[in-house]
Amino acid sequence: MAGIREPFLPVPGFSWLGKNIGIKDESPDFAVALAEVPCPAAAVFTRNNFPGAPVVVGREHLADGQLQAIVVNSKNANTATGAGGIADARRSCELLAASLDIAPGLVLPSSTGVIGVPLPMAILEAACRDAAPGLAPTREGLEAFARAIMTTDTRPKGISIEVGGATITGVAKGSGMIEPQMATMLAYFFTDAEIARQDLQEMLGRVVNHSFNRISVDTDTSTSDTVVVMANGLAGAVNAGKLEQALMEAATYLAKEIARDGEGATKLIELKVCEAPGAEAALAIAKAIINSPLVKTAIYGADPNWGRFVMAVGKVFDHPVPLEGLRIEFGPEDAGLGISASDQADGTLDRIADYLRSSEIEIRVRLGQGDFEQTVWGCDLTEGYVKINAEYTT
Amino acid sequence: MAGIREPFLPVPGFSWLGKNIGIKDESPDFAVALAEVPCPAAAVFTRNNFPGAPVVVGREHLADGQLQAIVVNSKNANTATGAGGIADARRSCELLAASLDIAPGLVLPSSTGVIGVPLPMAILEAACRDAAPGLAPTREGLEAFARAIMTTDTRPKGISIEVGGATITGVAKGSGMIEPQMATMLAYFFTDAEIARQDLQEMLGRVVNHSFNRISVDTDTSTSDTVVVMANGLAGAVNAGKLEQALMEAATYLAKEIARDGEGATKLIELKVCEAPGAEAALAIAKAIINSPLVKTAIYGADPNWGRFVMAVGKVFDHPVPLEGLRIEFGPEDAGLGISASDQADGTLDRIADYLRSSEIEIRVRLGQGDFEQTVWGCDLTEGYVKINAEYTT
Repeated sequence: MAGIREPFLPVPGFSWLGKNIGIKDESPDFAVALAEVPCPAAAVFTRNNFPGAPVVVGREHLADGQLQAIVVNSKNANTATGAGGIADARRSCELLAASLDIAPGLVLPSSTGVIGVPLPMAILEAACRDAAPGLAPTREGLEAFARAIMTTDTRPKGISIEVGGATITGVAKGSGMIEPQMATMLAYFFTDAEIARQDLQEMLGRVVNHSFNRISVDTDTSTSDTVVVMANGLAGAVNAGKLEQALMEAATYLAKEIARDGEGATKLIELKVCEAPGAEAALAIAKAIINSPLVKTAIYGADPNWGRFVMAVGKVFDHPVPLEGLRIEFGPEDAGLGISASDQADGTLDRIADYLRSSEIEIRVRLGQGDFEQTVWGCDLTEGYVKINAEYTT
Repeated sequence: MAGIREPFLPVPGFSWLGKNIGIKDESPDFAVALAEVPCPAAAVFTRNNFPGAPVVVGREHLADGQLQAIVVNSKNANTATGAGGIADARRSCELLAASLDIAPGLVLPSSTGVIGVPLPMAILEAACRDAAPGLAPTREGLEAFARAIMTTDTRPKGISIEVGGATITGVAKGSGMIEPQMATMLAYFFTDAEIARQDLQEMLGRVVNHSFNRISVDTDTSTSDTVVVMANGLAGAVNAGKLEQALMEAATYLAKEIARDGEGATKLIELKVCEAPGAEAALAIAKAIINSPLVKTAIYGADPNWGRFVMAVGKVFDHPVPLEGLRIEFGPEDAGLGISASDQADGTLDRIADYLRSSEIEIRVRLGQGDFEQTVWGCDLTEGYVKINAEYTT
């Protein structure tokens, strides 16, 4: 695999902008990405039954597998806003397309923020009309894009990977309303690799299923979640397997960054359920643990309360596990730090407590039942999560 | 329906004790209830796949539908403790039975507290041996029992209801690891009504399904949950319908008290999902909302963020709801305080914010699809929940 180069490497043939237009306050809230040419593109959207208006319009515009631009606003999700919201999303695409001299159907809109409040269209319209001159094919432009899509994120998230002669750069946002039922935040990938649109869609589906669909911050599935990839083809074809590997690596990196930056989080948790009788059982148990508020608060408090893992494994009624085979391990495999009903060496709880003070926590739950394993990522639950969400107001 | 009389009315033919024996600290941690005669009894236990040792032993002892005594300790759940834990639970029953001069199979054991730590049997054995003289058929004895079963509860919970010439008194504990998949805490009902054991079991099943199974604090299903009813028959037969109504009323009262006293909670939430196309859809949507951390934190912060209700309704993928018919109402029905995508009168958000400052929140979610409705209860999510559970240590 090619090395990870840096967070925000611009990809030839793309330009970006990100800035404040005053939707809510003075933080950046408006972003545009533009490709020089229409690109094969693929996307995965939220499964929430009330998708935001931009998701509805984005699905339409992606129907032909082509995109040339993306327009994003943060601070307002344009969701549960009815026919007016759909019209607003279309209008943004039309105005941006006119400014860029492209077809409106080549623009994908995204909005993220509060639900149920109409977009302030006067300022959005002006921003779309004036977008063209601000676009830059630079690191600064890309990073500004990544900053402008943030909501409660504490930092912009980006990753660039070389693959053959091409580059993949991904940027993402999302730190609350995150549950891996499907892509659960905004993530945009830009590459100059050449790839057919159908291959790109299938590749993205596989990648999302093993990256963004494996993270959880708070079990809530957003109405706006979108993962998009645009491939402008300027670098020519690259090995498809290597491209998928690079996309998987970039997506996994960003997914973990989203979990690490979960609202109020102080720790990234990587949880592997192994020795499961099947993949479905492994994933169901992994999700029960990573979503358990009692497990999450114990990890926050560095409390070696392994009984809470037992409880979480046991509440997956459809997949009973014999207690005799259940073992919870903390830290790298060679650390040998584990606990079970029949093996609780002196000092183990103290060693687990010490380990849980790290900012990156690795846990393996062995079921003793088979060979299947699944990995998921999450974060601890802190007073910060409550504070952010009790105060994140309309 | 007979009136609710008071929290802790002793029932003729029962006696109780509750005291500290030093399992963890100086708070009460040991409780016994005794009936004068063997009683028809019924119970509902946790569905968690790792039930505590007392649940395993309790199921055996209940197999013949008879009980005469209950022994409870708090501060330690005797769960994930293997064969030794089962032996400890049996030993407690034997010693208590010897002290009371009854058969060990007439004793139901319960333990609640930390998981995965062996019981301190030396002090429990002494307490069981010495139990008989401490029992009292009084209000004080009953209230001491209710206090000794508490863990993170902030107050004892009890309710007494007259039915015909009989009395039902229920006491309960439980404020974390609460999710209504099945009885999810400890609750004990004592009555002097006469009723056949089979009728009692069926009645309890129906009652639990509409009371304790409808509350949620944190989506986690405890390994120790137990609801027991003992009917000593001293008051003779009463109308079965009225008895069930009284038991339902008592159970619903205690279920709401558990939600109200949820860990860190400042508000009781009563949520009704109505106009649903079926009972299952109504309940699935109600649970998605009452369990949503974003809804719970918004209510804590009195944030009129109705979009989070939309999100939670929409994440029940199997039961899509048209946005046009969805309406969220706050407060009593005659207050007329509602919001929807097409109806957002000026000042509505401010009025909702004002209402959300109450300590008891009533919410109706109308789906506009049919005639089914379901009610569930929960509580807000606060920094206090995180604090309690990050610090509640082994």
